[in-house]
Amino acid sequence: MPTVPLIDEKAASPAVRAVFDDIKRTRNTDWINNFWMALANDPKELARVWAQVKQVMAPGALDPLVKEMIYLAVSVTNGCEYCTFSHTAAARKKGMSDAMFMELMAVVGLANQTNRLSDGLRMDVDPQFIPRG
Amino acid sequence: MPTVPLIDEKAASPAVRAVFDDIKRTRNTDWINNFWMALANDPKELARVWAQVKQVMAPGALDPLVKEMIYLAVSVTNGCEYCTFSHTAAARKKGMSDAMFMELMAVVGLANQTNRLSDGLRMDVDPQFIPRG
Amino acid sequence: MPTVPLIDEKAASPAVRAVFDDIKRTRNTDWINNFWMALANDPKELARVWAQVKQVMAPGALDPLVKEMIYLAVSVTNGCEYCTFSHTAAARKKGMSDAMFMELMAVVGLANQTNRLSDGLRMDVDPQFIPRG
Amino acid sequence: MPTVPLIDEKAASPAVRAVFDDIKRTRNTDWINNFWMALANDPKELARVWAQVKQVMAPGALDPLVKEMIYLAVSVTNGCEYCTFSHTAAARKKGMSDAMFMELMAVVGLANQTNRLSDGLRMDVDPQFIPRG
Amino acid sequence: MPTVPLIDEKAASPAVRAVFDDIKRTRNTDWINNFWMALANDPKELARVWAQVKQVMAPGALDPLVKEMIYLAVSVTNGCEYCTFSHTAAARKKGMSDAMFMELMAVVGLANQTNRLSDGLRMDVDPQFIPRG
Amino acid sequence: MPTVPLIDEKAASPAVRAVFDDIKRTRNTDWINNFWMALANDPKELARVWAQVKQVMAPGALDPLVKEMIYLAVSVTNGCEYCTFSHTAAARKKGMSDAMFMELMAVVGLANQTNRLSDGLRMDVDPQFIPRG
Repeated sequence: MPTVPLIDEKAASPAVRAVFDDIKRTRNTDWINNFWMALANDPKELARVWAQVKQVMAPGALDPLVKEMIYLAVSVTNGCEYCTFSHTAAARKKGMSDAMFMELMAVVGLANQTNRLSDGLRMDVDPQFIPRG
Repeated sequence: MPTVPLIDEKAASPAVRAVFDDIKRTRNTDWINNFWMALANDPKELARVWAQVKQVMAPGALDPLVKEMIYLAVSVTNGCEYCTFSHTAAARKKGMSDAMFMELMAVVGLANQTNRLSDGLRMDVDPQFIPRG
Repeated sequence: MPTVPLIDEKAASPAVRAVFDDIKRTRNTDWINNFWMALANDPKELARVWAQVKQVMAPGALDPLVKEMIYLAVSVTNGCEYCTFSHTAAARKKGMSDAMFMELMAVVGLANQTNRLSDGLRMDVDPQFIPRG
Repeated sequence: MPTVPLIDEKAASPAVRAVFDDIKRTRNTDWINNFWMALANDPKELARVWAQVKQVMAPGALDPLVKEMIYLAVSVTNGCEYCTFSHTAAARKKGMSDAMFMELMAVVGLANQTNRLSDGLRMDVDPQFIPRG
Repeated sequence: MPTVPLIDEKAASPAVRAVFDDIKRTRNTDWINNFWMALANDPKELARVWAQVKQVMAPGALDPLVKEMIYLAVSVTNGCEYCTFSHTAAARKKGMSDAMFMELMAVVGLANQTNRLSDGLRMDVDPQFIPRG
Repeated sequence: MPTVPLIDEKAASPAVRAVFDDIKRTRNTDWINNFWMALANDPKELARVWAQVKQVMAPGALDPLVKEMIYLAVSVTNGCEYCTFSHTAAARKKGMSDAMFMELMAVVGLANQTNRLSDGLRMDVDPQFIPRG
């Protein structure tokens, strides 16, 4: 039960449809997931967010699967249910195995643990960790 | 200004020193960072957390640099200052370039943006994203 | 499925009923939403929280719709499902249009993105941003 | 460097001074910490927040030290630096030993770890955990 | 709908079954909750996390009910649904009354409020709160 | 002490300088704050994030001061120090008075409190709050 109506392809304005078409082409898929159909209530925001996803998640200094797993790690840390399912699916499509998923979870769990231990113990940052300008 | 005194190597009990020595050996380094010296106020917790870090961050289905960048992505998302510096340093030591760091930041920023858009728009999870048992 | 039973108006003690009546009168409505019925398990906490909501959300230096949208922005950032629905409904009742809701979401998404970019890049606060005492 | 000027006892209006006096009397102390001096920029909010702290943190079904440690656990989980120091000091004043502090940190770390593992693995809530109405 | 299949006792490998048996023995119960069945997809992580829970949650400087309530306070602050139900149930089993639960909620609510007020007002930490080394 | 070097206007490439110039022109100011100088380590990300800020924060269905206060509410809720100072300064420049700032803080504090009370009490969303499609 979303807070806004979903705009499907049939109801989409030409501007929205152009983004939907680019999503399908870029991802080599034939359907649009609910996130984009909800975001389409603001066609400019839809275009802005999609342009970012398209550029940031493209191959670069990091490979797409690594990026997708980083995306998933953030989504899990934020407790975002929709994002956890959608980025787990996306990472699996890009090659994440069962073992990789479980190992990713172990790192995420550990990082959350030591992050909060650090926030409680409040050590100064070691000088060795500070980048030299 | 930590909330507990730091236990350095000279003041360490044999149990603490054994963990410190294993940290140095495993990481091929000659110093102990403040996190472990603070955690050493509870030698059992020190041993437990180190055992986890040693096992979880070892090579496995994911390579150590990827794990370190996932650790960093979580730390940034949690706003943990100490962790951001320590895991940036660790990732750089394992080969993270300037371009990789900035790309990681771009993914983390984007994931936080779309996570909260999803939390506001509250779409149902698409059936296509639900794993088949 | 709440963690506590909901206390409805019929089962309410006089102290709880007095708060419920004030909620209905203040909001010009004839029903009590689940949050207050759950909180009524602790009548003093019910009274304390309602007194705050009544005072803080009243017209003041900021107008009530702006306050309600700020409340919603926080709720979305915290990923609170109940709060997102209840404060979206409250803001709409006070005049938030579809366009205002989507624009609010765009700001919340952007803020979460740049917040975490800042937490990763860790710049010092510019002297120009520090208030002069 | 706070975002607002601190209102000290000399500069305080009678309404603010009344709250400051009640804080000192209730806590059996002779100084006011920076949180209240910052909050005093809004005398009504100062009075509201102090009234809550006074009531909620008083002895009740839970003893004051337990409440203070719960307060600290939340503060650490939220990464709030000021709160971590102030509630560590408050808990120590109420009897928290070094061993209790470190054990509290271990629980907080563990809870953050398993919280995020749960958020990633997304199990249904077991029927046995659902309260019977 | 978890992101991984649940491994029940019949399907469990000997290593997983040994952990399951220890969970049941330690908790004096005859069933395994979904968290452990999901985590069992990585038998080493299952063993690591259970070993921690067993050690950290055992009686020590803090009593088990206090620890369980701290665990619950963190889970609520993180908005983790599964964890909120499972640790509410665990705390009730260890003796948390209705009044204790509601009082715990009041502390958690208040702490989240003043944490964010502090994060907005940004006062320096009072020297009196800084531990002397 | 940022994790990356700051790129100032003199050291900026033409692409970065074009963004810096647009920031100064749009904001009618003669200096660039540290966030943009850090982000300039990735000129494409700098351009993407600035394009979003420029578009999303422009007048629309919501006025710019309201948007800036929403941005600030999110920043405080996330505990982002840099963002809290920079968006407090930005909101003041757009007309936020002392009273408005303190009232904004009161709403943010209250929302964080009731968000977490809701996350602990776990009521179902009232049918009245669910948008009709």
